[in-house]
Amino acid sequence: MLINCVAYQEGKKLKDIAIEEISDYLEIPGCFVWVALLDATLAELEKMREEFDLHPLAVEDSWQSHQRPKIDEYGDSVFAVMQLVKMADDELSLGEVDVFVGLNYVLSVRNRSNDGFLGVRARCEREPHLLSQGAGFVFYALMDAVVDRYFPVLDELETELENIEEQIFIKGSARSNIERLYALKRKVMALKHAVAPLMEDTGKLYRGRVPRVCANSQEYFRDVFDHLTHINASIDTIRDTIGTAIQVNLSMVTIEESEVTKRLAAWAGIFAVATAFVGIWGMNFDVMPELRLKYGYPVALSAIALVCGILYRRFKKAGWL
Amino acid sequence: MLINCVAYQEGKKLKDIAIEEISDYLEIPGCFVWVALLDATLAELEKMREEFDLHPLAVEDSWQSHQRPKIDEYGDSVFAVMQLVKMADDELSLGEVDVFVGLNYVLSVRNRSNDGFLGVRARCEREPHLLSQGAGFVFYALMDAVVDRYFPVLDELETELENIEEQIFIKGSARSNIERLYALKRKVMALKHAVAPLMEDTGKLYRGRVPRVCANSQEYFRDVFDHLTHINASIDTIRDTIGTAIQVNLSMVTIEESEVTKRLAAWAGIFAVATAFVGIWGMNFDVMPELRLKYGYPVALSAIALVCGILYRRFKKAGWL
Amino acid sequence: MLINCVAYQEGKKLKDIAIEEISDYLEIPGCFVWVALLDATLAELEKMREEFDLHPLAVEDSWQSHQRPKIDEYGDSVFAVMQLVKMADDELSLGEVDVFVGLNYVLSVRNRSNDGFLGVRARCEREPHLLSQGAGFVFYALMDAVVDRYFPVLDELETELENIEEQIFIKGSARSNIERLYALKRKVMALKHAVAPLMEDTGKLYRGRVPRVCANSQEYFRDVFDHLTHINASIDTIRDTIGTAIQVNLSMVTIEESEVTKRLAAWAGIFAVATAFVGIWGMNFDVMPELRLKYGYPVALSAIALVCGILYRRFKKAGWL
Amino acid sequence: MLINCVAYQEGKKLKDIAIEEISDYLEIPGCFVWVALLDATLAELEKMREEFDLHPLAVEDSWQSHQRPKIDEYGDSVFAVMQLVKMADDELSLGEVDVFVGLNYVLSVRNRSNDGFLGVRARCEREPHLLSQGAGFVFYALMDAVVDRYFPVLDELETELENIEEQIFIKGSARSNIERLYALKRKVMALKHAVAPLMEDTGKLYRGRVPRVCANSQEYFRDVFDHLTHINASIDTIRDTIGTAIQVNLSMVTIEESEVTKRLAAWAGIFAVATAFVGIWGMNFDVMPELRLKYGYPVALSAIALVCGILYRRFKKAGWL
Amino acid sequence: MLINCVAYQEGKKLKDIAIEEISDYLEIPGCFVWVALLDATLAELEKMREEFDLHPLAVEDSWQSHQRPKIDEYGDSVFAVMQLVKMADDELSLGEVDVFVGLNYVLSVRNRSNDGFLGVRARCEREPHLLSQGAGFVFYALMDAVVDRYFPVLDELETELENIEEQIFIKGSARSNIERLYALKRKVMALKHAVAPLMEDTGKLYRGRVPRVCANSQEYFRDVFDHLTHINASIDTIRDTIGTAIQVNLSMVTIEESEVTKRLAAWAGIFAVATAFVGIWGMNFDVMPELRLKYGYPVALSAIALVCGILYRRFKKAGWL
Repeated sequence: MLINCVAYQEGKKLKDIAIEEISDYLEIPGCFVWVALLDATLAELEKMREEFDLHPLAVEDSWQSHQRPKIDEYGDSVFAVMQLVKMADDELSLGEVDVFVGLNYVLSVRNRSNDGFLGVRARCEREPHLLSQGAGFVFYALMDAVVDRYFPVLDELETELENIEEQIFIKGSARSNIERLYALKRKVMALKHAVAPLMEDTGKLYRGRVPRVCANSQEYFRDVFDHLTHINASIDTIRDTIGTAIQVNLSMVTIEESEVTKRLAAWAGIFAVATAFVGIWGMNFDVMPELRLKYGYPVALSAIALVCGILYRRFKKAGWL
Repeated sequence: MLINCVAYQEGKKLKDIAIEEISDYLEIPGCFVWVALLDATLAELEKMREEFDLHPLAVEDSWQSHQRPKIDEYGDSVFAVMQLVKMADDELSLGEVDVFVGLNYVLSVRNRSNDGFLGVRARCEREPHLLSQGAGFVFYALMDAVVDRYFPVLDELETELENIEEQIFIKGSARSNIERLYALKRKVMALKHAVAPLMEDTGKLYRGRVPRVCANSQEYFRDVFDHLTHINASIDTIRDTIGTAIQVNLSMVTIEESEVTKRLAAWAGIFAVATAFVGIWGMNFDVMPELRLKYGYPVALSAIALVCGILYRRFKKAGWL
Repeated sequence: MLINCVAYQEGKKLKDIAIEEISDYLEIPGCFVWVALLDATLAELEKMREEFDLHPLAVEDSWQSHQRPKIDEYGDSVFAVMQLVKMADDELSLGEVDVFVGLNYVLSVRNRSNDGFLGVRARCEREPHLLSQGAGFVFYALMDAVVDRYFPVLDELETELENIEEQIFIKGSARSNIERLYALKRKVMALKHAVAPLMEDTGKLYRGRVPRVCANSQEYFRDVFDHLTHINASIDTIRDTIGTAIQVNLSMVTIEESEVTKRLAAWAGIFAVATAFVGIWGMNFDVMPELRLKYGYPVALSAIALVCGILYRRFKKAGWL
Repeated sequence: MLINCVAYQEGKKLKDIAIEEISDYLEIPGCFVWVALLDATLAELEKMREEFDLHPLAVEDSWQSHQRPKIDEYGDSVFAVMQLVKMADDELSLGEVDVFVGLNYVLSVRNRSNDGFLGVRARCEREPHLLSQGAGFVFYALMDAVVDRYFPVLDELETELENIEEQIFIKGSARSNIERLYALKRKVMALKHAVAPLMEDTGKLYRGRVPRVCANSQEYFRDVFDHLTHINASIDTIRDTIGTAIQVNLSMVTIEESEVTKRLAAWAGIFAVATAFVGIWGMNFDVMPELRLKYGYPVALSAIALVCGILYRRFKKAGWL
Repeated sequence: MLINCVAYQEGKKLKDIAIEEISDYLEIPGCFVWVALLDATLAELEKMREEFDLHPLAVEDSWQSHQRPKIDEYGDSVFAVMQLVKMADDELSLGEVDVFVGLNYVLSVRNRSNDGFLGVRARCEREPHLLSQGAGFVFYALMDAVVDRYFPVLDELETELENIEEQIFIKGSARSNIERLYALKRKVMALKHAVAPLMEDTGKLYRGRVPRVCANSQEYFRDVFDHLTHINASIDTIRDTIGTAIQVNLSMVTIEESEVTKRLAAWAGIFAVATAFVGIWGMNFDVMPELRLKYGYPVALSAIALVCGILYRRFKKAGWL
């Protein structure tokens, strides 16, 4: 579905153009075309391939969708695959945006995502001196918008981790902690898959031999790279912390079990003693003088209570009860 | 066993030729020969070595089979070992295809696998403009076909992992989860062995100094590399997830055991109390007034029941029962 | 908030100048300006951007604060983000200092931290032969001051680890050990985030192509790099040790539990034997000759005591009690 | 001990020569000398050093033996240390072979190993066209022979791992599994120490700047490198699998223990109920009507049996028994 | 404290000189000065700085002591920090030696260590042809001496590990094993800190651009590098083995506990059966015919013994007892 198809010159919008006119405008010097598609059909992609003379492999990758993020060069043009990540109902929803950038055009194809980039276009049109840098700057603006959307997701993951950490030393929460940590780990890995490959490939846009379309905007791409590095490092910390938290949680369960075992042992001991005593006086020997005493029974009960009491205090002191 | 032996010129099939004619056709400019063997005998390989002037070490590697995937250069020619991976009856079956590529020939030797590459040949012959790029493109087409077969295997492994994950927090499934995770880990490692070395060596086909036969098809080999990278990253995630899952599973077992211990402790406590009480009234003291009461017995039973009931409620409340 | 704004020439302080004069003084050959801000407002940063002609992206990064440490080059100028780390009430408090360095100026912006760098300025002014090396040396002096503040934090973390290690083999401290190890891990990770990225980027200041402002002070920056490497290596050791300590702690808990289980088993055994014996003599068979004996009761008690005693000694010997 | 000392020319054996003649033959153009020593004495090494003009450090390394595998260049000559690994009585036995290679000589010193390299010499002498490539090819042939001996060791380790894996889910085998896994790990690490450093250094023999003596045989050394890479990757997989297997084994022990605990709890519960019941009817209350009934006793026994039976069935159903 | 201050020419000792004469002798062509200090004071270091014209940062590092091992270049001179490691009373004692090397001088400063390098000086003076290579060779000789002292420490650590390994499968030694493994890990980490950074920096002395003072002795420094690599690899293996050993130890504890639990369960079962039986015959029903039989009592005892015996044999068979 076509969202926009606009021609720009010297940083200013010329006019909305028809798809068929694209190749004409591409021939006008100093003019560049910026097209945005949503969930493009094969026919639309094919049309774009013709108008912009895109590389067939790039178009194929865009059509297959569900690609790993990457930035590939095809001659003078650049093809970028980025993932759109969003938190919805405690689940990560993944979209994709593919960007084809040439010296005088930008084509973005958004898939499985409702959040458009109209804000990017508006911002670019408000700042003609930046837009006049051409396709490279638009490419940066799109990347920047995509990467900016990773931050709130990262924040939610960090908040979730902190919430779990508050529970980690609380007795009886081990099972739910483990479940939440495992679910968190999965989301973190999903975000990692969106960020890490993109980060690696973004490095190629500002250092070493830089694609021609990005040559004037290197410092901007380094800024994007810095952001991605920041996110990636935070993700690694979360992963590392989840690993430790699972280990710690296991320790806590073992400690709790150990405490229960001790308590069980203590009570079992106290009652075993009482049972042994009452058993003794339940024996049927003919000659058991204490059984004949007037106060034998209350004295026996008191003796049992006393022994149990002493045991109780000793266990209490030893921290078993 | 010979499958095909065809000479091509300018992207079009000339004709099926006899093995003995190969060296003759190799001398015709603009002509290239594409031979496919299946489970080749030593004699066949030796014949091929003579016709194509292959390097003895490459032929030896092909004969030994069970090689690690790799792409080696011998002067102007390239020798590639790739593993064919397939899911059969919940087990990975491994085959191998060795490809010898020269400036004007491609020789593929398939071992221990029933899935041929006739589709690749048909596709190439349908697109003369691509086939006319020569041996490099055929090499790409074969690699692409091999790599494409890794995806369904990867999907099955991911599905298996998801199935296990659904069981991971269900009580009583720990043993089967562990067994399935361990079996999955083995399959994942087998796929990793097919993918990772191939990925590393494929990098040499599109960046830096590229073998001459691949020089025109660099973008295609990068595409293969991207796919392998994608698969490899997915494998690493599965491995990482299996590791975490085993750890989590261990935690769940420990938690379950802890719960059983608590329940055991609770019931043991309740019955220990009852046993101690009945033991008391089983003692043989002469003077035990309550034994003489008319309703002593039912009152005693009620008292025991009451105490046990109170304990039961407290344990219930504490979550032990 | 402006802290200082001073112009220097040939290593000596010329005079405090007004913010508006900065751009004038920058044009005087051999003169350089050193400005220090605290929790700068957007307006102040904007003013600085104009006077020093700073890059908008650097200013934006400084304004957003909470950046990952980094050292970026913008043409001939350098922009550094460093974290200020301090121990306060057993918690790490994090501040930030951003430094803009040009050929003839240094601008430092300190955020969320009360510890200023007046000492650095005083030290520089005391050593004109060093200060006359210009902005690069001031940059080094600031970095050195920041890095020097990491050492006491590292020492506190190492001390805390040693304190925990003294507890690790002491029974009954497992729970608090785990909690302290987990808290320590979090602080260590925070310090790591301050140190590791800075270390990586500092490498760019002394080897390979060095930014022009740092060219005369390479050996000084290598010294900073050495210190950061030292801290980073110590952090990695602490992390590794924490990991091992958690594992060891888990082992200790399991061992303790195992000992408790053994003791429980031993006492349970002793009392089970006693209970079984007294039960036997509590049976109501008509013909039980021993019950009729005069000394049957004391002999029975002695027999029980003897058997229990033997068991007790055997368990003692086996290390179960 | 001298094994062989032979001079070759143009790929053919000239004759066995005396040690003293070595330096004379080295001066004959196109002639090269191949000497094999076994457990050389210091005097023998010193003699060799003089005849071949070996570097003192290399000779010292060879004398000290127990070196890490390595390949060092000394000017135009190469010094290689390789470990000979062999399975003997379920233990790895380690030998060492040091090879000094110059433009026109090869000296091999074998230590602590009975398996000589006569086969290598025989094979080389059978193929004059290869032997005429000179010292580099002999060096390759020796390396190839050493590396080929790693494969059966690797196979035995893999077989041992498979044997353990078959036991891993069998109850009651945990202790022996752990012991065998630990012993296997040690052997694997020993093989790793033989393979990994050699692999790294072999890389220097075929890519980048290659030592002059190896220059004509690069493809052969790459083949050795491929084999070492293969072995190394297999070792890493075994290590990884051992790690997982230990973890899984621990899980199995915990699961088994959990099952035992459950069974214990179930039987304890059944008997506790029975004991409480019989205790009730063992009380001495005057008025306990059921005790007076004619069929009280069998009814009571039946009641107890019934209750226990119900419990038994419920536990059975819950999988505890 | 000054240990030695000697001038050498052409590999031979000229004479002991006074500190004040150093700068004079440095000007004599072909002459070099070798000074050894022990626990130098700030004044001594300052004096040295003047005489040798050392870099202030290097002197500062030497004064601060407790540095990470490193090798830094300052123009044509080299500054090396090495740690002296020694086993004393089962503890690692750490010293430090700092070496300043210039084209015609070597200054070594030893701290916190009683083991001097007189042997190194004696050895150098015995071999004038090596000593005449100048400061680089002396530097190598010092490094070699330092590194040679790591080997006995490594041996002790390996012996300790083997001692622990012999205990690892012995019951009841888990606690002491864990404590010893943890203590060993700490010592291993300390040795690692001495070795790993030195190894990394030593690489710079023999490959790539080599400092001028080391240029003639590259093969010697590679030899040192080989030794450090060997030690480092052995350390990594020890670490890895410790990790596995801790894991295995935990498994053994769990297995032992599991065995204890089983035995407990078995004995508890046997006695529970006996107790239930005697309880039955302790009931007070009026009509219990077996109680009236003449041989009821011995028959009952035999029956109980029989049942317990059967249980005992079954548990024995199942491996629980």
